[in-house]
Amino acid sequence: MSNLSNNFLNLSDLAIEDLNHLIKLGEKFKKGYRINLIKPVYVANLFFENSTRTHTSFYMAESKLGLKVVDINTATSSVKKGESLSDTVKTLQSLGISIEVIRHKTTGWYSSIVEDNNVNASIVNAGDGAGQHPSQSLLDLMTIYEEFGTFEGLNVGIIGDLSHSRVAKSDAQILHKLGANLYFSGPKEWYDAEFSDYGTYDSFDNIIDKLDITMLLRVQLERLNADSVNQFKANEYHEQFGLSLDRANKMKKSAIIMHPAPVNRGVEIDSSLVESSQSRIFKQMENGVFARMAILAHILDNKNLLAEEISYE
Amino acid sequence: MSNLSNNFLNLSDLAIEDLNHLIKLGEKFKKGYRINLIKPVYVANLFFENSTRTHTSFYMAESKLGLKVVDINTATSSVKKGESLSDTVKTLQSLGISIEVIRHKTTGWYSSIVEDNNVNASIVNAGDGAGQHPSQSLLDLMTIYEEFGTFEGLNVGIIGDLSHSRVAKSDAQILHKLGANLYFSGPKEWYDAEFSDYGTYDSFDNIIDKLDITMLLRVQLERLNADSVNQFKANEYHEQFGLSLDRANKMKKSAIIMHPAPVNRGVEIDSSLVESSQSRIFKQMENGVFARMAILAHILDNKNLLAEEISYE
Amino acid sequence: MSNLSNNFLNLSDLAIEDLNHLIKLGEKFKKGYRINLIKPVYVANLFFENSTRTHTSFYMAESKLGLKVVDINTATSSVKKGESLSDTVKTLQSLGISIEVIRHKTTGWYSSIVEDNNVNASIVNAGDGAGQHPSQSLLDLMTIYEEFGTFEGLNVGIIGDLSHSRVAKSDAQILHKLGANLYFSGPKEWYDAEFSDYGTYDSFDNIIDKLDITMLLRVQLERLNADSVNQFKANEYHEQFGLSLDRANKMKKSAIIMHPAPVNRGVEIDSSLVESSQSRIFKQMENGVFARMAILAHILDNKNLLAEEISYE
Repeated sequence: MSNLSNNFLNLSDLAIEDLNHLIKLGEKFKKGYRINLIKPVYVANLFFENSTRTHTSFYMAESKLGLKVVDINTATSSVKKGESLSDTVKTLQSLGISIEVIRHKTTGWYSSIVEDNNVNASIVNAGDGAGQHPSQSLLDLMTIYEEFGTFEGLNVGIIGDLSHSRVAKSDAQILHKLGANLYFSGPKEWYDAEFSDYGTYDSFDNIIDKLDITMLLRVQLERLNADSVNQFKANEYHEQFGLSLDRANKMKKSAIIMHPAPVNRGVEIDSSLVESSQSRIFKQMENGVFARMAILAHILDNKNLLAEEISYE
Repeated sequence: MSNLSNNFLNLSDLAIEDLNHLIKLGEKFKKGYRINLIKPVYVANLFFENSTRTHTSFYMAESKLGLKVVDINTATSSVKKGESLSDTVKTLQSLGISIEVIRHKTTGWYSSIVEDNNVNASIVNAGDGAGQHPSQSLLDLMTIYEEFGTFEGLNVGIIGDLSHSRVAKSDAQILHKLGANLYFSGPKEWYDAEFSDYGTYDSFDNIIDKLDITMLLRVQLERLNADSVNQFKANEYHEQFGLSLDRANKMKKSAIIMHPAPVNRGVEIDSSLVESSQSRIFKQMENGVFARMAILAHILDNKNLLAEEISYE
Repeated sequence: MSNLSNNFLNLSDLAIEDLNHLIKLGEKFKKGYRINLIKPVYVANLFFENSTRTHTSFYMAESKLGLKVVDINTATSSVKKGESLSDTVKTLQSLGISIEVIRHKTTGWYSSIVEDNNVNASIVNAGDGAGQHPSQSLLDLMTIYEEFGTFEGLNVGIIGDLSHSRVAKSDAQILHKLGANLYFSGPKEWYDAEFSDYGTYDSFDNIIDKLDITMLLRVQLERLNADSVNQFKANEYHEQFGLSLDRANKMKKSAIIMHPAPVNRGVEIDSSLVESSQSRIFKQMENGVFARMAILAHILDNKNLLAEEISYE
C-alpha cells in the first residue's frame, strides 16, 4: 500500500513510486480488472467550468467502479445563492457523499478545503484555474508509458499556448521529474518563464525531428480577451506553430502525437493527422477512463471501502 | 434477423418488413418482454434542442433495457468550446459509449458521421432540424397498429403546421408507403408542396367525417419569427384549423385523435378533448418508451450484445 | 398503516400520529433499515427553482431506497415550449414515472394537479413559492426529536426573514400544533402578521436565554428587490438579528442552533458557530436524507410497491 493520501490534488505531491503504482493500476483496469465495494459509496461531480470530456470520463470511471454517481448541475446549484465552495463540499458530505470530484476556476481552490478538519470527504481535483489538471497528466503518462515503457530520456515537445494551459504545467513538472528531456515551443507571448526550470524553448522546426512525443496544446480562444481573439489568425498560427503535414513528415517514424482535446482542427494540427497512425489523441481519451478508475480506486482502498486491498505486482 | 443497420437514422431507409419487426418488438416490450446484455453497455443522450418528452422517453427505454445511461448536459459541453459534433461523437466513443442518441438542429446532421470510418458507435437520430423524427413516427405507427391492426386503406388527416414539422414529414412518407390514404389541412402558408406526393390538401371541415385518424400538429411558436408570432391569433387558428368540439362531433365513432405533444390546449385542440375517450395522445407517449426499447434492442442485437438473439414470430 | 395519502403536499394536512410515524420511520432508516420494492419504480425530480441541498437530498433518498431516478433538466424542458406544469406531470406519468418530486415558484402549485382525475402519479411538494417546504420541516422535526425526545413545552425561537421563508411558515404551524412555545424575532418589516397565531414577536436579546432551539432563517438576498438589496447592511443585520458570539454565550447549555442553509456566514450567524458543538446545521442536512426516505417509503407502501408493509413499533 502506497502513501498516497485520501485526496488527489496535484501530481507534484506524489512520489515517483506512487505515480508508477497509479499507471500500473490504470493498465490493470484497462485489461479488465474489477473491484468490489463493501457497501454503496456515493461520489459527486461538481464541474463549475465547461467540460464534456473530463466530466464524462470521470462519470464512466465512477460507473465502471460501481460507485453511485451524483452529478451536480452547477448552473442551478446553491453557489448561485452565494454559498462558498467549502460549504457546498460540507453540505454534500452531510448528505452522504464520500468522494467529491471538482473543477473550479480558482487556482488551488482545494487548499483550504483539505485543511478543514470538518471535511472528511475525499477531494479530487479535476482542474483548478491556471493550476493543474492532474488526472489529465496521469492519462498522458499512461499513454506514454504504454508506448515507450519508460519516461527516462524521452524527448518531449510541448507546443502552443503554454501560459493558459494547466495541462502543460502539470505535464512539464512531472515529465521532468521522471527524466524526460523537455522542449517548448509556441508564440513567445504565450510562453511562461517558469517552464525554463523544466526544459528549453526553441522553434518548432528546430525540434520536430528529434521529438519522441509531440504534445500539442489547445488554443483556448475562450480564455483569451476580446482583442486577442480578434487578432488571432488561425492560418498564421498553423503555419508557425501548428503540426502541419510538412512538419509531420519530419517526425521520427516511432514518434507519437498527443493533444488534450478538444482539437481545433487546422489550427494546432492538420485535420487529417488527428486520426493518423501516429496520433494517440483518441487513445488518450480512452486511457483517461482507466487513469481515473485508478485514482478513485486508490482513494477507495485508502478509505477501506474495497472488499480486498488492491495489490501491485 | 432483419437487415436493419447498426444505426437508426430515418424511416425512409427501412423496408416494410423492418418496420413491422420494430412495431411487433415494441408490442412485445409493452407486454413485459425483457432482454439480457452480455456485458455493461453505455449509451449517451445528447440533446442540443429542448426536449422533455423525447429525452425522458429515451432515458426510460434505456434504463428499462438495463443500459448504463450518460446524459450529456449540452449547455456545458465542449461544443461550447467549438468542438464539431463529429468530434464529440468520436470523443464519447473513445470514452466507452456504444450508442449515441442525438437531437440536433442541423437537418441530416448524421450523414457525414455515419460515413466516417472512425465512428463505430451506433447513432440514433432523435430529431434532425427540419428533417425527420423517426422514433416519434415509430411510436405513431405502433399506436395506429394497436388500434386498427393495419395501415392499408386507413384515412389519415395530418392537420396544422406541416412545413415546420419533422413529425409530419416522417409520418406522411411512411404512412403513404404502408398504404394509408393521406389528407392534409392547415394554413395554406404552412403547407409544403412536397406533401402532395403523399396525399391531398383540403379543408378540415371537408375531411373530418371520413378520417380514421386525426393527427394534429403542434403550432411551434418557438420556430416562428417574431412577426408571425405577433400576428398569430390562437382563437382564429382554433376556429379554422383546430379540433373544436363541433368538429369532434363529426368524427367517426371509431376514429382516434393523435398529437405529438406538447399540446397547445385551445389552439390545435379543445382542451377537454385531450383526455377524451377518442384521444390517444397520452397513449402515444406511453408507446414511445416501448418503441424506443425496440429501436435500441434491435441495435444491441445487431452489435451482438444480447445474451440471446431477439426472435420474431 | 396510517392514513397518509399517496401524495406529500404539506404538513398541515397530517395528523400528529402521522407525523410521529414519519419521524420514527426516518430514524429507522438512519439506523440502517432498508426496504425492498416488488418491481422497478421510477421517480422524477423537477426543480424549477435553484436548489442543491434539497434536490441532492431527494436524489440520495431515492437512490438509497432503490428507486430509479429521472432528473429532469428544467432549463431545457418543454415548459420552455409553454407546456403547463399539469401537462408535464401527466406526460411523465405516461412515460412510466410513479412519483414526481416538484419544486415550483407558484404557491400551492399542486392543488389542481392532485384533484385531476387523470393524474395517478404520486406528487411530492419540494417547495411551493411562498407556501410550504414540508420535507424541510420534517427533517427539522426529526432533528429536534432526536435531541429532546418531545416537542411539548420546548421554547423555539425563529429568527430572521419570516415573510419570505416557507420553512418558517411550515415549522411555526407544525411546532405550535405539537405543543412548542414559539418566539419570533427579526426585522419588523420582515415579520408577517399570520405568525401571531402561533407565538410571540420579541427582540432577539429578550428571548435568547430561554430558548431551547434557536432556529435562524436565511436572508434570501435573491428574493429581495434591487432597492432592498442595496440598502441591506450585513454588519447591521448581524448586530441586531444575527446569532453573534455574545448572544451565543447567553444560550442555555442544552440549547441547539438550527438553520435551513445555505448559511450566510457572518450575517445570520457568526461563522465560527456554524460548526460549534451546539450547532445542528449539518446534522439537519444529514437527517434530510432519512426524512425524505420516510416520505417516499410511505408513499411506496400506500401504493403497494413494497415487498413487505412498513411496520411501526
